[in-house]
Amino acid sequence: MTCADVALSPQVAVGAGQPLVLMAGPCAVESFAQTHAVAAAMAALGLRVLRGGAFKPRTSPDSFQGLGEEGLRILRAVADEFGMLVVTEALGVAHVPLVAQYADIIQIGSRNMQHFPLLWAVGEVDKPVLLKRGFMSTVREWLLAAEHIARRGNERIVLCERGIRTFETATRNTLDVQAIALARAEGWPVVGDPSHAAGRADLVLPAALAAVAAGADGLLVEVHPRPAQALSDGAQSLPLEALPDFVAAVQRVAAAVGRAMPTLTPEAPA
Amino acid sequence: MTCADVALSPQVAVGAGQPLVLMAGPCAVESFAQTHAVAAAMAALGLRVLRGGAFKPRTSPDSFQGLGEEGLRILRAVADEFGMLVVTEALGVAHVPLVAQYADIIQIGSRNMQHFPLLWAVGEVDKPVLLKRGFMSTVREWLLAAEHIARRGNERIVLCERGIRTFETATRNTLDVQAIALARAEGWPVVGDPSHAAGRADLVLPAALAAVAAGADGLLVEVHPRPAQALSDGAQSLPLEALPDFVAAVQRVAAAVGRAMPTLTPEAPA
Amino acid sequence: MTCADVALSPQVAVGAGQPLVLMAGPCAVESFAQTHAVAAAMAALGLRVLRGGAFKPRTSPDSFQGLGEEGLRILRAVADEFGMLVVTEALGVAHVPLVAQYADIIQIGSRNMQHFPLLWAVGEVDKPVLLKRGFMSTVREWLLAAEHIARRGNERIVLCERGIRTFETATRNTLDVQAIALARAEGWPVVGDPSHAAGRADLVLPAALAAVAAGADGLLVEVHPRPAQALSDGAQSLPLEALPDFVAAVQRVAAAVGRAMPTLTPEAPA
Amino acid sequence: MTCADVALSPQVAVGAGQPLVLMAGPCAVESFAQTHAVAAAMAALGLRVLRGGAFKPRTSPDSFQGLGEEGLRILRAVADEFGMLVVTEALGVAHVPLVAQYADIIQIGSRNMQHFPLLWAVGEVDKPVLLKRGFMSTVREWLLAAEHIARRGNERIVLCERGIRTFETATRNTLDVQAIALARAEGWPVVGDPSHAAGRADLVLPAALAAVAAGADGLLVEVHPRPAQALSDGAQSLPLEALPDFVAAVQRVAAAVGRAMPTLTPEAPA
Repeated sequence: MTCADVALSPQVAVGAGQPLVLMAGPCAVESFAQTHAVAAAMAALGLRVLRGGAFKPRTSPDSFQGLGEEGLRILRAVADEFGMLVVTEALGVAHVPLVAQYADIIQIGSRNMQHFPLLWAVGEVDKPVLLKRGFMSTVREWLLAAEHIARRGNERIVLCERGIRTFETATRNTLDVQAIALARAEGWPVVGDPSHAAGRADLVLPAALAAVAAGADGLLVEVHPRPAQALSDGAQSLPLEALPDFVAAVQRVAAAVGRAMPTLTPEAPA
Repeated sequence: MTCADVALSPQVAVGAGQPLVLMAGPCAVESFAQTHAVAAAMAALGLRVLRGGAFKPRTSPDSFQGLGEEGLRILRAVADEFGMLVVTEALGVAHVPLVAQYADIIQIGSRNMQHFPLLWAVGEVDKPVLLKRGFMSTVREWLLAAEHIARRGNERIVLCERGIRTFETATRNTLDVQAIALARAEGWPVVGDPSHAAGRADLVLPAALAAVAAGADGLLVEVHPRPAQALSDGAQSLPLEALPDFVAAVQRVAAAVGRAMPTLTPEAPA
Repeated sequence: MTCADVALSPQVAVGAGQPLVLMAGPCAVESFAQTHAVAAAMAALGLRVLRGGAFKPRTSPDSFQGLGEEGLRILRAVADEFGMLVVTEALGVAHVPLVAQYADIIQIGSRNMQHFPLLWAVGEVDKPVLLKRGFMSTVREWLLAAEHIARRGNERIVLCERGIRTFETATRNTLDVQAIALARAEGWPVVGDPSHAAGRADLVLPAALAAVAAGADGLLVEVHPRPAQALSDGAQSLPLEALPDFVAAVQRVAAAVGRAMPTLTPEAPA
Repeated sequence: MTCADVALSPQVAVGAGQPLVLMAGPCAVESFAQTHAVAAAMAALGLRVLRGGAFKPRTSPDSFQGLGEEGLRILRAVADEFGMLVVTEALGVAHVPLVAQYADIIQIGSRNMQHFPLLWAVGEVDKPVLLKRGFMSTVREWLLAAEHIARRGNERIVLCERGIRTFETATRNTLDVQAIALARAEGWPVVGDPSHAAGRADLVLPAALAAVAAGADGLLVEVHPRPAQALSDGAQSLPLEALPDFVAAVQRVAAAVGRAMPTLTPEAPA
């Protein structure tokens, strides 16, 4: 395992030589109050990267499509209050400048992993990119998608394994832990997304621990103050109360694989 | 089967009440001579829809990425000479106006089936859209992608089944003939793409016949003057010499399922 | 296509040089009356190979497991009355002598395609074998399974493509029409099973036509006098009333691909 | 996690309340010397369950099919020398009495998970059963297969997740760590088989750690004195030298998930 470190900010980096980076937050930003509640719970545990969707790619045109720029503003304001970084998805090329203005890390979603104009666009931005694996894409295709970005000049790429589509229907996707090891061996940091892989809250912890044990450099987890009322992905979101035990369990496995623990003491606001 | 007809031009429509529409052409436009040779062979058989890629989505950044606007110009010039329609892919939102300027039908590629900004963009253009099924998308997701387009006002949508990704490696993809029947039952015309499904020239004919027998309203087939020298997808391209027998075999099966035959007499230039 | 002919009886053979062989019957033999009704409907259309399960492999131990030897007796009696051949599954090695005593063709089920002791056992019997493709087996594995049988001395093998397991859930399985062409190119006759592939009666006809258009040498179709009351696979069984139109449609496509039509005049009882 | 404990012997049990059970050994028993060398390395680390194939299910009839009863004799003799238990596969119903005579635990292979006569046969034997998940089977089908065994009276069943077949080709199979959690939640102990999932030695350790982190009650690992010369599965076998570090790493993760460590002190011969 020789994956290189990628700086997410002057203070936070992700990679083989770094502490595990726990990114958490709601699937979709629904309101300031909802986002603030999640961030407060995260801050109490020392988590410093806030995720949340402002523009949501939804299979059905009838589903909630996100708050748009208002969502970005909420993410930024809440993150600034707690001294956190923001990771959020750019849904298309036209969103990249807007997202880059508010976010610290630009996410490319699973359905867009081979949307090449978007890869080229984030390849020309001076922000780290979180590249989710297409749920239909091989590891080779995933690595080549990263190459499409890197060729344009941006090599601050973090890969994210979020489960692949298989015949199994008891879970939303199948977390491919071996892909984490394979992609890291090619030199990229990799985080695991147990929430989308599992699609159900009861499996998020075992999936997360498996990702860390397989070598993941971080995790991306969906958390919501009231999962049952979430506008998207409620079934797979952890409630805030579950977060402390989740983090503690993750830390134990991280330590067992020789990974420095993430700082548990809350950060002062920046 | 109650799929509605979609007009591709004042003269050509695709759907349950229409003759089978055979769209053919090279995977990528490589030169005027190459495209002209293919179109001439098509014209001799009465085929009237020319396909070809000007902007190519390629897994590897090292592969040939297409001629760009020059490719669009070639397609248009050749099609005009033979009185044909042009179908070609818009790779991203920014290409839509350009592609719409040259093409008669805008293709959404398999990797972009859930790139929602692109669906919305072609939903606002006054051109028919050929929506390829994502190679790992369910029929339900495919129909919802069409709905994303239709909601923006453009209901001239033709679906294209081009094979799905499975565990089988002897073929590039697995042609899902049942999906053709399912999607037609929902009211959309569907064409089959045996070339991408098979990934090898020797299986293009049986796959094409299967698609037509299952009810496909048309076919999209890759043809090249010299498949062994093709810059992309050579292995699955039919040589020009194979086209007459291919068309004749397709016609026999089309007739057997009660489908009016495509006109065999060459058209005069428009 | 150079697949060899396999004699199912002195009068009936299957393969490239033969008429299409339509095998039909109930999923499970439930009673003499049920089986007789199906066979009578088949006989009126000239169909001569009766399928039916006596020992049923069922995912759940609570499902109907078949009538056992009584089912075999019914199949034999009914087939003899109408001058038909019987094809039925041997669930395990211990059943082979019993099944061979009653059946003309021994079926190896999809779940058993790599149960090697069973392959070896039918390899030593003097009866033709219908080898279903494992629903998650590659074409290469399927051909090697046939080789396991052939090495023991029995080369009267007919392959059966019955759909593979994919991510698509709108259908029970995905009929792999390209696999039919691939397996025939290796020299074996191949029949298609649209009933198990589709898993729903409304898709059995398009799937059957696709299989024939792709080159299938025959079909295996589930038929039931009252599908809604069937003890197994009712949703995918054709009702008797649908059989004449089904056979007529199949014949038209068979003729279109140059396949001699099956005899339509009913056979006199043997 | 409420999975029940299953006694493998009066001294060794597997389940939620038990230490992790590490089963190891060669894919196929090739000779006394080979098996003895593996067992000696295992004994030095305190491992007490020896796996090895005497009857091998092989896709190709040309591949090595195992030593048969001679392989069983070797396994028994070596295991007795080191005070170990033997787990080995019964390939068919006819092998069950023979295997039961030599083995302590009877393995049902992945390809046989739905070979119901075999499930019924081991359901009537007084030995624990290791039921591998079919690489094409859903978790629900796997649990129902266990039910087929349990209904015949034998409830000493240990499930084994060994990877499922997906579109990914960089690995032999995709280890489904979520399935481990799901199956344990239904009350069965589950062991992970990282060797078959990965198919390549460099991924066996991360896959093993992921399985343990996800809650696996044990592991089944292929080890060979000279992997490059192995008659089967050499590419995925760990060399003996790798075993100590492998076991130490597994222990650290096991401890991190609250699992009592396996005994590290070698056992005296029984």
